[in-house]
Amino acid sequence: MSMVIVGSVAYDGVETPHGKVDRMLGGACTYIALAASYFTNPKIVAVVGDDFEEKDYDLLASRGIDLAGLERVAGKTFFWSGVYSKDMNDRETTATDLNVFAGFQPKLPESYKASPYLFLGNIQPGLQRAVKEQMNTASLALTGGDTMNYWIADFREELLKTIAGWDFLLINDSEARMLSGEYNLRKAAYKIQEMGPKTLVIKRGEHGAILWHGEQHFIVPGYLLDDVFDPTGAGDCFAGGFMGYLAGAGVTANGSADHNTLRRAVIYGSVMGSFCCERFGVERFRTLTRKEIDGRFEEFKDFTSF
Amino acid sequence: MSMVIVGSVAYDGVETPHGKVDRMLGGACTYIALAASYFTNPKIVAVVGDDFEEKDYDLLASRGIDLAGLERVAGKTFFWSGVYSKDMNDRETTATDLNVFAGFQPKLPESYKASPYLFLGNIQPGLQRAVKEQMNTASLALTGGDTMNYWIADFREELLKTIAGWDFLLINDSEARMLSGEYNLRKAAYKIQEMGPKTLVIKRGEHGAILWHGEQHFIVPGYLLDDVFDPTGAGDCFAGGFMGYLAGAGVTANGSADHNTLRRAVIYGSVMGSFCCERFGVERFRTLTRKEIDGRFEEFKDFTSF
Repeated sequence: MSMVIVGSVAYDGVETPHGKVDRMLGGACTYIALAASYFTNPKIVAVVGDDFEEKDYDLLASRGIDLAGLERVAGKTFFWSGVYSKDMNDRETTATDLNVFAGFQPKLPESYKASPYLFLGNIQPGLQRAVKEQMNTASLALTGGDTMNYWIADFREELLKTIAGWDFLLINDSEARMLSGEYNLRKAAYKIQEMGPKTLVIKRGEHGAILWHGEQHFIVPGYLLDDVFDPTGAGDCFAGGFMGYLAGAGVTANGSADHNTLRRAVIYGSVMGSFCCERFGVERFRTLTRKEIDGRFEEFKDFTSF
Repeated sequence: MSMVIVGSVAYDGVETPHGKVDRMLGGACTYIALAASYFTNPKIVAVVGDDFEEKDYDLLASRGIDLAGLERVAGKTFFWSGVYSKDMNDRETTATDLNVFAGFQPKLPESYKASPYLFLGNIQPGLQRAVKEQMNTASLALTGGDTMNYWIADFREELLKTIAGWDFLLINDSEARMLSGEYNLRKAAYKIQEMGPKTLVIKRGEHGAILWHGEQHFIVPGYLLDDVFDPTGAGDCFAGGFMGYLAGAGVTANGSADHNTLRRAVIYGSVMGSFCCERFGVERFRTLTRKEIDGRFEEFKDFTSF
């Protein structure tokens, strides 16, 4: 079933120990949609400038992504650039030019409003809420999203109001600690679940992820890649694989969101995040097949079972 | 079957965010033997000073640990102290008084020499080799051990000569990177296996461990504790649980060391490391039962399977 995704479509400049690309397609919404496209029909809500290139539209369209909600306005597309450390666990941001993204007021096309799945990417929490309010809430099967340190620190009340209405939240470990005020992840998870989302996924970068669902938890280690070319977008691809799988499986928050299905969704998220790192930017998605995805899912089974 | 363990028996002073203990039983050999004692009969080879207390002998003896090789000499027992950071991922050593450990020349009692299992704890690599040479090598089913950054950096040739004769090596991720010269753990593991040990366990602290065995690998995440009181000895307890389980199961390097048994050994290692952190020093081993251990083994199955 279809899935609406709101977030940034951007151009990125990235330097890693494996090379440097000055300008390439990026943005959280882009990565989420590309990863989700292997499981469901993504519909994106985002804004780009008049410099947005035809070939980038084409890549998104070639993956069956609905672009009716991709607004094009005068000006430049959001640009971000960063340089990764040698071990790629840290990165330094060298530019954040919001450009047309600064005035982003998400507007949902009518054709999106009955979609059962809604993923609210990392934007100002008030805007995330405004997007949900535009949806036909009676049709919504599952709503979730992510956030970041900036909103947790400076928009806390707004953020709490927003995530109170979500079925799941995806954040990384440092954000979970910041949001909950607890260093211990078990305690952090309980506190966050009390804020609203019954399902919580804590992403741990190369160390994998933890799923919390009610009182149960599931831990998956990270995939060991031969080479990490560029980790940009890996967390967003995790989100796209996770929710894309749930949308494809027709899971609903008050029904078939059984714990085992959520565990499989976490594995598909991990699989998509791992593929993302194998090439610069979105390059891996030009050739990636569902068969490769399912092959890596089996690899996860193989290297974690005992 | 019985298992010989060589290493340090010490007194430790430890400060963590949960409290401070000025002097308590510690040392790698102590932790390894205590953890292994739930699976096999450990026989320790170590040295203590004349300040070593009766109650500490008694604790070790109460767990069925053979103390025939625990030499007592004039002088003070090895003393180490350290202070942990708030997140307990770092620690600062505040004292390392080698005392009687400085002149340690391990001597195996006759009753130890036909033991089929040998674990060479973290001491000077030449001494590790000298211990193995005292064993009746025809009886040896499995030999392994660990090492540390100091020996890797300053005793490299000696260390390579030593581990060439081992069936397995246990080290942490930063040591694996240092020993192999490879940052990527997959590449690091291949290089280390070429140095001799066909089985390699890379410990990742709170993030669990990776087992490499021939061309296969297995990844287990770390257990999420409600509270980490004191991580001192957790890596040694991992080693004790790992090899203790293999000794208890009667596994041999050229025979029944099948991959699945090694995976279970890694889980038992993880289980023992997790219990170790629940109290200061060796306290947890005063009450820990095999039933609790097997219960946590099942918990690992539960939170990792999908």
